[in-house]
Amino acid sequence: MKRIEIIGVEGMGEVRTGDCVGELICAACARQGIELTDEDVLVVAQKIVSKAEGRIVSLKDIRPSERARELGRELDKDPALVEVILGESQRIVRKGGRALIVETHHGFISANAGVDCSNVGMGQAALLPKDADASARTIRAEIRQRNGKAPAVIISDSFGRPWRVGTVDVAVGIAGMKSIKDERGTKDGYGYELRAAVTAIADEIAAAAELVMGKKDGVPVVIVRGCQTEKKEEGSVKELLRPAAEDLFR
Amino acid sequence: MKRIEIIGVEGMGEVRTGDCVGELICAACARQGIELTDEDVLVVAQKIVSKAEGRIVSLKDIRPSERARELGRELDKDPALVEVILGESQRIVRKGGRALIVETHHGFISANAGVDCSNVGMGQAALLPKDADASARTIRAEIRQRNGKAPAVIISDSFGRPWRVGTVDVAVGIAGMKSIKDERGTKDGYGYELRAAVTAIADEIAAAAELVMGKKDGVPVVIVRGCQTEKKEEGSVKELLRPAAEDLFR
Repeated sequence: MKRIEIIGVEGMGEVRTGDCVGELICAACARQGIELTDEDVLVVAQKIVSKAEGRIVSLKDIRPSERARELGRELDKDPALVEVILGESQRIVRKGGRALIVETHHGFISANAGVDCSNVGMGQAALLPKDADASARTIRAEIRQRNGKAPAVIISDSFGRPWRVGTVDVAVGIAGMKSIKDERGTKDGYGYELRAAVTAIADEIAAAAELVMGKKDGVPVVIVRGCQTEKKEEGSVKELLRPAAEDLFR
Repeated sequence: MKRIEIIGVEGMGEVRTGDCVGELICAACARQGIELTDEDVLVVAQKIVSKAEGRIVSLKDIRPSERARELGRELDKDPALVEVILGESQRIVRKGGRALIVETHHGFISANAGVDCSNVGMGQAALLPKDADASARTIRAEIRQRNGKAPAVIISDSFGRPWRVGTVDVAVGIAGMKSIKDERGTKDGYGYELRAAVTAIADEIAAAAELVMGKKDGVPVVIVRGCQTEKKEEGSVKELLRPAAEDLFR
């Protein structure tokens, strides 16, 4: 019977700048009686990674540029927040209503460059990790060092989508697994050759994990167990970024 | 401990026009020793629903219009397939490369209007159900009639996304649950009022289910157990469609 389990890791406590996320995860798993395996996928909310890496800013310390003030007026957003968003962005993709959709320096296209004021403290904003693949590799190495097991690691964040209401979680950083499952060129049960069968498996795992994480349930780490992923030491979220030349919505 | 299980329902066999999907699901669950509950969410692949509803066409029977032939040449696509796609579409949103992104009569924006030639037999194409909310309600009623339990039902399909590589499964029809989790106006642990906290929970459940379904594993039905969903008799996938006036990518 094909079965996947999604298990919340609880009692992580408040994560602070300089904390070792891998160590916190190992300790919380031990308290919960969970033994991590090489086959698990560990999904870690971006927010705690950003906290550990000090990617938190106090909006009162930000001096907004003229451009940020203008955009703030236009979009009814705090100009300090806009300044932070612009600092994380290569370019604005769309703006309108209260939405500011940008391309981040990492190449993600997302609302507000992933900058987010929830679950970080009043007047604070969390930025995405500078290199969330590296963050994921670090967490994976920290875990391997402590218990000899190296689950794949996905750093996740909630992204909005065009056309559809609401966010779904996606991967923003990956270590130890292939992000996509590519079945192009293989045949279905009728002999038909699959042409478009590329599945964003890391994004589906991130979405699945959010069902346990929630937005305010204090479960920033989730184990996805039983999922058929392909190991890949040099796995990267870059596999999930569609090249601009092949994209119809830039 | 927060835990969700995703369980594949196996041995559904080949679904044919006129088959009662709810009955097939009950029979397969019984053989597998699974007792469905009111709290389960049943995710059903669109493909078997389309087969049961006869939403399958033979491409050799299609006479492509001049417009379909032109588009077929431009996009290097079978003109008969293009004709079928146009028949399912309100309008073309983008075209380029080999991609044809349309708005379907249901209001979905998707590649090829969800028309798909895999897993249906050579020379055949499956269309999305005409009203997949109704399909989901029917399956739910069939199950309730047989075993007195009424799990929520999501009909799922694999959709591509702008900006990111690969498909993720999303809901195209829903019965018995609320599609979104709206936490706007509530406060996080720091007292910060959440502003954008609308989660497309039905889409996350569909994505999670795909991890067990796969594209060619013969597991078209999946039970998601332990997920905190909100019951809603009149639930509909329409809750997930962003109004055009609020969308920046039409």
